Amino acid sequence: MSKRLIDRLTARVIELESPILVGLDPQLSMFPEEVVASQVRRFGDNPRAYAAAIVEFNRAVIDAVEGLTAAVKPQIAFYEALGVAGLQAYVETCDYAYRRGLFVVADSKRGDIGSTSAAYAEAFLDAVEPQEGRFYSDFVTVNPYLGDDCLKEFVKRIDARDKGMFVLVKTSNPSSAQLQDLEIKSDGRTIYQAVADLVESWSSQRVGECGLSSIGAVIGATHPEQLGELRKRMPTSLFLVPGYGAQGGTARDIVTALRPDGTGALINSSRGIIYAKPQDGESYTDAIRRAAQTMRDDIRAARKEAR
Amino acid sequence: MSKRLIDRLTARVIELESPILVGLDPQLSMFPEEVVASQVRRFGDNPRAYAAAIVEFNRAVIDAVEGLTAAVKPQIAFYEALGVAGLQAYVETCDYAYRRGLFVVADSKRGDIGSTSAAYAEAFLDAVEPQEGRFYSDFVTVNPYLGDDCLKEFVKRIDARDKGMFVLVKTSNPSSAQLQDLEIKSDGRTIYQAVADLVESWSSQRVGECGLSSIGAVIGATHPEQLGELRKRMPTSLFLVPGYGAQGGTARDIVTALRPDGTGALINSSRGIIYAKPQDGESYTDAIRRAAQTMRDDIRAARKEAR
Repeated sequence: MSKRLIDRLTARVIELESPILVGLDPQLSMFPEEVVASQVRRFGDNPRAYAAAIVEFNRAVIDAVEGLTAAVKPQIAFYEALGVAGLQAYVETCDYAYRRGLFVVADSKRGDIGSTSAAYAEAFLDAVEPQEGRFYSDFVTVNPYLGDDCLKEFVKRIDARDKGMFVLVKTSNPSSAQLQDLEIKSDGRTIYQAVADLVESWSSQRVGECGLSSIGAVIGATHPEQLGELRKRMPTSLFLVPGYGAQGGTARDIVTALRPDGTGALINSSRGIIYAKPQDGESYTDAIRRAAQTMRDDIRAARKEAR
Repeated sequence: MSKRLIDRLTARVIELESPILVGLDPQLSMFPEEVVASQVRRFGDNPRAYAAAIVEFNRAVIDAVEGLTAAVKPQIAFYEALGVAGLQAYVETCDYAYRRGLFVVADSKRGDIGSTSAAYAEAFLDAVEPQEGRFYSDFVTVNPYLGDDCLKEFVKRIDARDKGMFVLVKTSNPSSAQLQDLEIKSDGRTIYQAVADLVESWSSQRVGECGLSSIGAVIGATHPEQLGELRKRMPTSLFLVPGYGAQGGTARDIVTALRPDGTGALINSSRGIIYAKPQDGESYTDAIRRAAQTMRDDIRAARKEAR
């Protein structure tokens, strides 16, 4: 029998000695000018040109970080902003990443009542390999506000297709505390702890050979204390840790999210890598590769220091 | 100056004496067989045929409910499930509804960190009229789990474009209580009340001539007590009330969500209307129209009874 998703991903993180997860958040205003200009010359100044520029840019990013990252995370909002053409670019991005051997985390933060969540799970987790015009992903991010009859629909599809999900537990943004940190009167847990316990209850029933499951949690790099606390509270859950770099999280902040072998969390940086500024005659892809290497090396150093 | 969105919508609800909101949740397995079969004959058995069937069905629904509803609510999950072709059908559906004079509520339940929410707001609320391949909507549904730096990005776009949003407060599904009903230790409010207060704080600053604002809340028809409680707590917020019909909510359950003049809430039914069973030689569109009429009349009767 072939290895399960969680074991393949974990093995790849160990092989690369890199838990980094490169975010593919296309913002045309941040692209190298020539990438957009050349597509506008080809298609005119319209969404088709912008979509082609996105695909070209993302392919260049994916090629540039080869051997440095096990996975990529396209943030679907930036594709939706361009409408149907943008979503076609999203599909092509995920397919290219798959063909280059990368795991794909669809950052979509979906969530709805049961029957609707089933449709979202079908949208993101049904395809076992890329299909023309369909969304391909290995993992999806999910919002817990509607409770577990929402999340269970994703769990069903995960079990059927050997896929994974990351439930929002403690997000990286400044106002995450507003709801997530509220203490519950009846048991003193915070909201994020209550969600964490729910996630771990599913995760612990689906542990692979590596000791983790493909059901996990989003926990921001901007909350180093909670990362360590939740690593202990959720021993079998894989973490997706956004907020590194541009949002302020550092290698020292995220080290507690990792298990001693360097696995257990994917550390995401998007803008900090893909929009890295070229220095001294570097190409933009050189700058991207350097930024990814620096992030990997900083995390390696922080892990050594923490031992 | 032309009237604001909230005043135009409210005037239309009064004119029709109908607060119903028809959900456009395409599920091919529920469609009349011939709708799908004829498109499969045309395009082959593939997503393009399914997308064409969706557009045909939705147009038929929109035509069938003419004069009975002020607005429609496509649930984007069911379109995403078909990938890019499904989203093209989503765009065509929204555009057709706009051309038929209906207000469009994009049921997307988006929400992310600030910069990403700005991209979602751009995706759903930027277009002031339909544009090829772009999402057109008047209102969008939004998830509050990430707190107000997420929601503020939607508010910015709403103010700039005269659009609206419905924040999930108390959803219609069975497990909504799991998070939303938890009591907060520090002040005794429930989570949904805390979200409600946040929404009303924005809403009360944006009141139109009708006394309501286009910033509002999703509150399920399956919670009649909370509907009445929240109507008082959020006097300026427009409600989107799902859960009528197929999920169990009745006209008596939702009557407290309405103001004395019958406005203040859009009462949504999806499956109960669009998949209404034809009786005695009715066409499927006859059955849809009859179901919408019955819902409108039931709500009128329940309002009279409540007076």
